[in-house]
Amino acid sequence: MDYRIEKDTMGEVQVPADKLWGAQTERSRNNFKIGPSASMPLEIIYGFAYLKKAAAYTNNELEVLSEEKRDMIAEVCDEILEGKHDDQFPLVIWQTGSGTQSNMNVNEVIANRAHQIAGKTIGEGEKTIQPNDDVNKSQSSNDTFPTGMHIAIYKKIVENTIHGVITLRNTLHNKSQEFKEIVKIGRTHLMDATPITLGQEFSGYVSQLDHGIKALENTLPHLAELALGGTAVGTGLNTPKGYSELVASYIAKFTGLPFVTAENKFEALAAHDALVETHGALKQLAVALNKIANDIRMLASGPRSGIGEITIPANEPGSSIMPGKVNPTQCEALTMVCAQVIGNDVAVTVGGTQGHYELNVFKPVMAANVLQSAQLIGDACLSFEAHCANGIAPNKEVIKQLLNNSLMLVTALNTKIGYYKAAEIANTAHKNGTTLKEEAINLGYVSAEDYDKWVNPKDMVGEIK
Amino acid sequence: MDYRIEKDTMGEVQVPADKLWGAQTERSRNNFKIGPSASMPLEIIYGFAYLKKAAAYTNNELEVLSEEKRDMIAEVCDEILEGKHDDQFPLVIWQTGSGTQSNMNVNEVIANRAHQIAGKTIGEGEKTIQPNDDVNKSQSSNDTFPTGMHIAIYKKIVENTIHGVITLRNTLHNKSQEFKEIVKIGRTHLMDATPITLGQEFSGYVSQLDHGIKALENTLPHLAELALGGTAVGTGLNTPKGYSELVASYIAKFTGLPFVTAENKFEALAAHDALVETHGALKQLAVALNKIANDIRMLASGPRSGIGEITIPANEPGSSIMPGKVNPTQCEALTMVCAQVIGNDVAVTVGGTQGHYELNVFKPVMAANVLQSAQLIGDACLSFEAHCANGIAPNKEVIKQLLNNSLMLVTALNTKIGYYKAAEIANTAHKNGTTLKEEAINLGYVSAEDYDKWVNPKDMVGEIK
Amino acid sequence: MDYRIEKDTMGEVQVPADKLWGAQTERSRNNFKIGPSASMPLEIIYGFAYLKKAAAYTNNELEVLSEEKRDMIAEVCDEILEGKHDDQFPLVIWQTGSGTQSNMNVNEVIANRAHQIAGKTIGEGEKTIQPNDDVNKSQSSNDTFPTGMHIAIYKKIVENTIHGVITLRNTLHNKSQEFKEIVKIGRTHLMDATPITLGQEFSGYVSQLDHGIKALENTLPHLAELALGGTAVGTGLNTPKGYSELVASYIAKFTGLPFVTAENKFEALAAHDALVETHGALKQLAVALNKIANDIRMLASGPRSGIGEITIPANEPGSSIMPGKVNPTQCEALTMVCAQVIGNDVAVTVGGTQGHYELNVFKPVMAANVLQSAQLIGDACLSFEAHCANGIAPNKEVIKQLLNNSLMLVTALNTKIGYYKAAEIANTAHKNGTTLKEEAINLGYVSAEDYDKWVNPKDMVGEIK
Amino acid sequence: MDYRIEKDTMGEVQVPADKLWGAQTERSRNNFKIGPSASMPLEIIYGFAYLKKAAAYTNNELEVLSEEKRDMIAEVCDEILEGKHDDQFPLVIWQTGSGTQSNMNVNEVIANRAHQIAGKTIGEGEKTIQPNDDVNKSQSSNDTFPTGMHIAIYKKIVENTIHGVITLRNTLHNKSQEFKEIVKIGRTHLMDATPITLGQEFSGYVSQLDHGIKALENTLPHLAELALGGTAVGTGLNTPKGYSELVASYIAKFTGLPFVTAENKFEALAAHDALVETHGALKQLAVALNKIANDIRMLASGPRSGIGEITIPANEPGSSIMPGKVNPTQCEALTMVCAQVIGNDVAVTVGGTQGHYELNVFKPVMAANVLQSAQLIGDACLSFEAHCANGIAPNKEVIKQLLNNSLMLVTALNTKIGYYKAAEIANTAHKNGTTLKEEAINLGYVSAEDYDKWVNPKDMVGEIK
Repeated sequence: MDYRIEKDTMGEVQVPADKLWGAQTERSRNNFKIGPSASMPLEIIYGFAYLKKAAAYTNNELEVLSEEKRDMIAEVCDEILEGKHDDQFPLVIWQTGSGTQSNMNVNEVIANRAHQIAGKTIGEGEKTIQPNDDVNKSQSSNDTFPTGMHIAIYKKIVENTIHGVITLRNTLHNKSQEFKEIVKIGRTHLMDATPITLGQEFSGYVSQLDHGIKALENTLPHLAELALGGTAVGTGLNTPKGYSELVASYIAKFTGLPFVTAENKFEALAAHDALVETHGALKQLAVALNKIANDIRMLASGPRSGIGEITIPANEPGSSIMPGKVNPTQCEALTMVCAQVIGNDVAVTVGGTQGHYELNVFKPVMAANVLQSAQLIGDACLSFEAHCANGIAPNKEVIKQLLNNSLMLVTALNTKIGYYKAAEIANTAHKNGTTLKEEAINLGYVSAEDYDKWVNPKDMVGEIK
Repeated sequence: MDYRIEKDTMGEVQVPADKLWGAQTERSRNNFKIGPSASMPLEIIYGFAYLKKAAAYTNNELEVLSEEKRDMIAEVCDEILEGKHDDQFPLVIWQTGSGTQSNMNVNEVIANRAHQIAGKTIGEGEKTIQPNDDVNKSQSSNDTFPTGMHIAIYKKIVENTIHGVITLRNTLHNKSQEFKEIVKIGRTHLMDATPITLGQEFSGYVSQLDHGIKALENTLPHLAELALGGTAVGTGLNTPKGYSELVASYIAKFTGLPFVTAENKFEALAAHDALVETHGALKQLAVALNKIANDIRMLASGPRSGIGEITIPANEPGSSIMPGKVNPTQCEALTMVCAQVIGNDVAVTVGGTQGHYELNVFKPVMAANVLQSAQLIGDACLSFEAHCANGIAPNKEVIKQLLNNSLMLVTALNTKIGYYKAAEIANTAHKNGTTLKEEAINLGYVSAEDYDKWVNPKDMVGEIK
Repeated sequence: MDYRIEKDTMGEVQVPADKLWGAQTERSRNNFKIGPSASMPLEIIYGFAYLKKAAAYTNNELEVLSEEKRDMIAEVCDEILEGKHDDQFPLVIWQTGSGTQSNMNVNEVIANRAHQIAGKTIGEGEKTIQPNDDVNKSQSSNDTFPTGMHIAIYKKIVENTIHGVITLRNTLHNKSQEFKEIVKIGRTHLMDATPITLGQEFSGYVSQLDHGIKALENTLPHLAELALGGTAVGTGLNTPKGYSELVASYIAKFTGLPFVTAENKFEALAAHDALVETHGALKQLAVALNKIANDIRMLASGPRSGIGEITIPANEPGSSIMPGKVNPTQCEALTMVCAQVIGNDVAVTVGGTQGHYELNVFKPVMAANVLQSAQLIGDACLSFEAHCANGIAPNKEVIKQLLNNSLMLVTALNTKIGYYKAAEIANTAHKNGTTLKEEAINLGYVSAEDYDKWVNPKDMVGEIK
Repeated sequence: MDYRIEKDTMGEVQVPADKLWGAQTERSRNNFKIGPSASMPLEIIYGFAYLKKAAAYTNNELEVLSEEKRDMIAEVCDEILEGKHDDQFPLVIWQTGSGTQSNMNVNEVIANRAHQIAGKTIGEGEKTIQPNDDVNKSQSSNDTFPTGMHIAIYKKIVENTIHGVITLRNTLHNKSQEFKEIVKIGRTHLMDATPITLGQEFSGYVSQLDHGIKALENTLPHLAELALGGTAVGTGLNTPKGYSELVASYIAKFTGLPFVTAENKFEALAAHDALVETHGALKQLAVALNKIANDIRMLASGPRSGIGEITIPANEPGSSIMPGKVNPTQCEALTMVCAQVIGNDVAVTVGGTQGHYELNVFKPVMAANVLQSAQLIGDACLSFEAHCANGIAPNKEVIKQLLNNSLMLVTALNTKIGYYKAAEIANTAHKNGTTLKEEAINLGYVSAEDYDKWVNPKDMVGEIK
């Protein structure tokens, strides 16, 4: 392979000739062969692109960077955001815990690409712009990486997670409305209980997602706080006056999202409780989605020897050995995502506990886990909505039969004849395999007429909204 | 032991003669010998006392319960809240997952105690008030237990957790102010970095706790939603019209806390995402507190061979073998609490994922874990504040010496001579064991005069607020 | 309250006059008001009693402690093990992370009680034996606490956990044998699948528990390694020659368990991977038990609108509002225990990651969680066995009906007519609500005669053992 | 794009013309757009290749498959194992929870590639071999996927994890030997304690890894059990007699690993406790590695204002803003891996709890997490060894100075003058900022001569091995 020589403060390094990165990226590539290459999420690289551009504009406005350099930096950042350099970021999550090497990767790619744009050849002549002194001006890895990860995660939450969850929520809400007159047996402890409508059952799912989305949105203000301007330890050393606020406003402008400068930069560097907070809400959504998906596959179980109150779309052959089998595969994909998110929450938590002094050095692992969870929840909700929720249909025959069999309709008699006598009726019917009505009359507690008046499933589900 | 006979729908049970509980409590005692007895938190029992009283008032107001019965129920509830019957609740967490048996325990104790108050002997004559038909009127375990746990947890969060965290936060804030002029070396990656003030370092802790408290408060509205009125499956079967709203307002009145009826009762029974949400915020506080306590013990390490920049109170002999040893024991207690809370979060999460159909049957384990975490964090913050944070003092001699030794003061030269030359100075001083100033001059990059002007730790910590 | 004065190296402390503990215990009581008092598990105190007695014998045999002192120490240790002093150990888990204060609690109680035994009054005259110089001779908290916790946990695992799991395993094995001829429908993805016997289904549970017990037993050798003899940092400072091996052999003798001295004392003090290892196996058992309990409640669901293939004992009324309801409460208690154990695993793990240098200071929280999990699993298995598993009975009527309805019997035709044609038969029968046989003949793929020969559920379950 | 038509039991599907996969793979691609494509680990595909080849050999030997078909299947399997078809497996983890679609992906690729090898054109004519009837003969997804994942994980554990951990272990052992005479201060509670050798400190790390490897090896027998032969529900329907044992022996032969057929196929399909067990041991290793890496970065902290007792290699510039800074980046990468593994453990656990009836449908998420953890630990150990552990050197100057300053050398006096007087000496020296010797003499407890004889760090570290 062809190489060129790049230098950093430690000396010379051979870099593949066709790559835009420099010495520090190459050192990291060689020093951290852990897991698949390029595992550092591209979203974070894009977050960096936004902030490097914003920093360039701010530095120029505060008169520490020339307009020419600003424009060159901005141009490369725009190229990165267009996805033109996705293959220039080969580093892994498992590098320095401050993400320094990915910051330098971005600095180096911008500097070398700017050199090209300036009509020169990489590796020849003095760099048109310097990775540290120009691209990284008024910055440190310690404030850029957390800024990049906040940008990446905020965007992902808004564009992917919330979008996906709301899409599913709306379909479930429509189903809830569609099913609002379908009275069915309720189940508690997995056992037959008093009636409920299928619409009410689904409204519970909608409420879970509504609460989950609200919880997620509650975490956004913390996530909107940007560390940039804190530089190395939070004091803002080597930044011009007014830098923090201005750079945050540029980032807000470029991303269209309500970013602000963190009120306390020491917290913003040394702790990533904002990520713990956001992931906590993602985990809550996972908990909700797990319940929903689990219910749906149980309600759809069968086709002949399960519950079978609803049917879900048959999207693919379900078995390589059992012909004609159809399985709740979307429920399975979604609940597997939930298991992953619940695990990721612990990874984020453990990373969050481990800040030392002025810096938390679990940034990459925390950010990568939050991004993965945010993506998976969003994607899985869309998939589940399109290929499952959207096609849910009631199996009215089964619903009716299971409802009418139920012994728990007896509960309607509590307020008429008391809990003890009602229990006696139910127990007797259960023992004898008879109906409630038969035993209610046999035991002499209720007349046939009263029974029919009092025990009516439709009257037992409350007001239908 | 003396026994009396109590009955339920399954038949007769022998109950210790001197106990107020009835048949179902006794069945549960015998059927669930798992872990220490009476592990069901008393706070939940008290939550039940509030709601049983509120239900009695509501039932009376809605004309389904006599004033006489209302008053008797209320009187026993007040006795329970005064702690007069703490030994009447022997059941364990590890019972039915709906907490039915603890609901019945409360119903039975109220009914039997009311019988006594009515001047009668327990076990003799017809019960003055019935556990199911009167005390439990317009209720089900399925809506009372979640209501009781929300009351218990909300109170605990407000009275204990937030109180404790704010107490610690205020002391750390005072320390931050007190230490605001003390310039010291910053550390990133555990390595020497640029200067910071001790006050700034502490301000980061304050900010973590401020964010943590806010996150916790964000969860309170969900927790304020009460399931009561949903009865068995969320439909409100067997409740009088207007019951849900009225009973919630009584609970709000009796507790002085802003409880409201849950908008969606199906969610309130079948899912306990509210607990997952609240515990997520407790976990975030654990993450923050772990970072703070860890920093403080590292800063206080020594006394002669550690960092030693601060001293913490010596509260007890530290070692049974090493005379004169003093240890950061409050930090250890606090970080152990954090480990427990992080574990509890997973228990709550796993419980939360497992609702089936109309009911989540992991209520007791979820509630017990949230209550434990809320208590431990509150208590540990108060303990840490009183016996550690409050007595933190800077070790100015050490701070000064470590600051002046630092090679990272060189960072101030970046904007004067560029990153590369600054690095050369630092590396040379490191290699030679010399000072930055010596090497800056030797290398010919900075004059002595400029060095003294440019490299001044006080100038490197930003604006001191 | 009456007080006496006790002293330690920090000065005088008032101690309740009727208590055996001394100055350091009292300091800890006052300094760590975190959660309920006396939360430090008594099992660990008993572990200390074994080791203090063993240390006294060893010290005497190695000629650094008089026979008289040995006997007095041993006598008090025996009293402690008889449960005579359970109220003398008021400290909490949330103390110093080395457990120093509980070690001193034991030292102080032994010294003061020995003073009484010697016919003197506590607090008067010089102590007959000294807590540090005699009771703690050749010891440090740093090696005694881990020794005490290993003793406590090992005993708990053997006496409680393994006993409980094996009891349940044997009952499930008996059920498996009892049910071995009962052919029923299998279910995969919760959907109807090919036949299986109920006995085979239960044999899977047995195999899970067999594997789980084996995994737990695999962890015992690490747990059998005792830190005692390492003293403060693992070097064995202030111990007589031969102490480590001898004291371990005394502990083995007194407990009847195969304890040995840890080969590497530095690991034994600074890391508690042995607890992480043991709890990992407890967590595996929790995973297995969760699956089993979950299956059983689904199989028993109904009574009329669920699966209903088996019945489980009705131990208590299931609902405070729904008369006659019976619920799978033992399954719920057991799965709640599983959720707790899964959470505890994370607490133990987090504690385990945090050793620093020569000492892990998360000992109490780690030990308490392992003990709780070990106890809960053992107890819950016994409870589940006695009140649920033992009474499981097949509902043959239901089993037969669900089996014969199944479309997945078609799988038997794969090897006769190929997967595609078999799928066509199943899909057609599903669409038309007909039987497989009808469609097999209609489609002309199988004759009635062949169908009856080829499709026989009994032939589809393999060899029955 | 060019398409061809493929068919399955549900009908026709357009498949990219240049791809070897068929209808079911394409359906899955379209139905599960969750996260990045092709996330299903290739290691599992390779596991399938081994087992498909073994099944073909077994089927032929048991006379249900022709030699010709066997050889064609085997040839494609070998091609897959050579990495020739890596781009033919586009499916994601988040598919059906039985992995059916990846099984079919393999079946389809083998069938289509065999068609090519037979000199025909894919999509034209009848398939030379059938994906279901030939490639999948005597198999189900339900037994192949768990077999494939056991093969993949076992190989990964042996080839990567254990190899990496042992490499690091050996280097740490060498360091332990190399440092065995270097006496340094010990630290407990992060505070100065009695002396220890640097070699002893490192021997604790070695012991942790030795125990961890042993724990991991203990899990291998469960992992060696293969589900193959259980087919759809564990009964072995549609397999020829003797199949299970023979196919396992072929897999053992082809992989060179000691695989056996699972004794209980119902467990092997319905539960994946084997993965929970193996990952539990990986988590234990993560706990150990976290402790080790954390210690090393604290010991190496500085260079001037930390502990600084050891130096570690400087592999890259440490800061984009602080010139000359070097950070413990390998420790950070390794501890981030540990955080991930700890999180993955919870994902695996949650997946493990959720088997239903005859099948656990969290197979892909469980397998993927175990594989990731196994890979990351192996890789990170190698990286840490090569770029950090291998270059650790003692900083003898610092070690000596910190040791001699220590007040805890006073512990040596316990056995001479008692704990209380020794404590007085230490406390006085601490208060006065003097040396132990000065105060020992001043207080009149020890003569200068005795002090020098009794207090000698070298004598305090026990026998040096």
